[in-house]
Amino acid sequence: MVSGVSSAAAGLVAKAREGDKHATARLLSVVENEEPGAAEALRELYPLTGKARVIGVTGPPGGGKSTLVNRLAGAYREQGDRVAVVAVDPSSPFSGGALLGDRIRMSERFLDDGLFIRSMASRGHSGGLARSTSRVVNVLDAIGYGVVLVETVGVGQEEVDVIRVVDTVVLVTVPGLGDDIQAIKAGVLEIADVLVVNKADRPGADETARDLAQMLTLGKMRTSWKPPIVRTVAATGENVPQLVDAIEKHRAWAAENGERDRRRRDAARSEVEELLRAALIRRLRDRVGDERVDRAVARVAERSIDPYAAVEELLKD
Amino acid sequence: MVSGVSSAAAGLVAKAREGDKHATARLLSVVENEEPGAAEALRELYPLTGKARVIGVTGPPGGGKSTLVNRLAGAYREQGDRVAVVAVDPSSPFSGGALLGDRIRMSERFLDDGLFIRSMASRGHSGGLARSTSRVVNVLDAIGYGVVLVETVGVGQEEVDVIRVVDTVVLVTVPGLGDDIQAIKAGVLEIADVLVVNKADRPGADETARDLAQMLTLGKMRTSWKPPIVRTVAATGENVPQLVDAIEKHRAWAAENGERDRRRRDAARSEVEELLRAALIRRLRDRVGDERVDRAVARVAERSIDPYAAVEELLKD
Repeated sequence: MVSGVSSAAAGLVAKAREGDKHATARLLSVVENEEPGAAEALRELYPLTGKARVIGVTGPPGGGKSTLVNRLAGAYREQGDRVAVVAVDPSSPFSGGALLGDRIRMSERFLDDGLFIRSMASRGHSGGLARSTSRVVNVLDAIGYGVVLVETVGVGQEEVDVIRVVDTVVLVTVPGLGDDIQAIKAGVLEIADVLVVNKADRPGADETARDLAQMLTLGKMRTSWKPPIVRTVAATGENVPQLVDAIEKHRAWAAENGERDRRRRDAARSEVEELLRAALIRRLRDRVGDERVDRAVARVAERSIDPYAAVEELLKD
Repeated sequence: MVSGVSSAAAGLVAKAREGDKHATARLLSVVENEEPGAAEALRELYPLTGKARVIGVTGPPGGGKSTLVNRLAGAYREQGDRVAVVAVDPSSPFSGGALLGDRIRMSERFLDDGLFIRSMASRGHSGGLARSTSRVVNVLDAIGYGVVLVETVGVGQEEVDVIRVVDTVVLVTVPGLGDDIQAIKAGVLEIADVLVVNKADRPGADETARDLAQMLTLGKMRTSWKPPIVRTVAATGENVPQLVDAIEKHRAWAAENGERDRRRRDAARSEVEELLRAALIRRLRDRVGDERVDRAVARVAERSIDPYAAVEELLKD
């Protein structure tokens, strides 16, 4: 059975590496949902990872991110790279539908063998999305996509966690956010490597760019990298080459200055620690038995013991 | 030192139970940030929890949630309940500033001994906010706040997790969301117990209510409870009594039908499992040593082993 499972996974991996999109989609589902064979597949693929340019695009809804991602995908395709787009949707009511619509339009637009599109929805628990995204990105990287674009909608904690898996973070904003732009500082500005003012043909683009520049001077910079501000009009493709250029500059800087390695180490750490936690709790359940865990939970629920006492008791022996 | 810590915590608990707001604020910080003494405080308080009516108010930005929460707080204050408001902000750029502003206006409005207001920001990692919120709610419950209103902004996964700690979930929407309202279904509609169309004096309120009603008929209902739809105008207080009434009806139903116990068991489960994970990883680090963990992480980062192999190795003995 297990050997059957792993050989099935191995078969998917082989087909996916040959560019079979159905096998790729299936393999991603196996890995994303941790179906049987996921561990074997990731084991086989992991040594092949680390080659792709992984670019994250994030920012508030309504910023035209999907259109910009379409443009970036097109630009990298023209350079001959195989491009994968991972559209991550933490199922905010303000993105879900629109995002899917864009994805459909996009797949019509670049229906070629060198482009693969994957939409990911929330995992139903916080943090799950970030972990499954990093697994999906690793698979796409390993099977030969030279560029992986990770698009997230919204700017909450989950999006910040998701975007940590990338090498370069592009934060997309638009003119006319008013005071709200101030609040971006509290959100993802700290992790942004390239700032984009999209829809830059709209009034207010100058103020928005100026506000962003000012925030950058206020915020303590973590590294020597100074995030450039690029004005784009995704709808027409205006300045998309400049954006690609800014992304590649950051990539070169990050490789030289150890920033890329630092991020990959952080990503590896959270992945290892997550797997450790899961393995440890599995072992504990095997040892003490689910019944005892359930009993402890029930007693906490009825307030007869507190959670700390319950944990101590479960770990007693 | 430890005894010093626990006696300090015990002192805070005593003062907080007497209604000392500074001690309460300090105690909440200790518990929220798991400072020394947090475990002792929670242990002492946990048996006292389970009495408060814990009501969650969530929904997309711009729905007038804060104003509605102010009204609810006022209504419960008039009934003589001590009321605590926990305003949870996953630091979305679209809520941060506004939320704080509302909180300030609100504290001016009801500056009385029976009202306590607490703002919570993101914990910097997914899931952390939900856990610290449940700890904060437990403390407020234990020290004698009869009503705890938990307000979250936005409708992503983190908000859904946060809102799970409450007994009754109020989902606030407004007319004129257009297609976006469809997407709410994908988000928090499943966990909503009471639906509110706020700003119901605006055009489109009827369609919005109708759309919500239709979604409810489409969505598979988890229980026999049929979420009522209440139209409010928070700005004027219109229909706030009807909202309170709907909340209390759900509360009575949930108590009768075991739904409240089910939710509290789920909350207890995730709290126990979270503490278990933390304790297990701490034990492992103590046993194998941080150096070995760090070495394994570094080898994963440089792709010389995969995360699964790293975990197996760390758990070998």
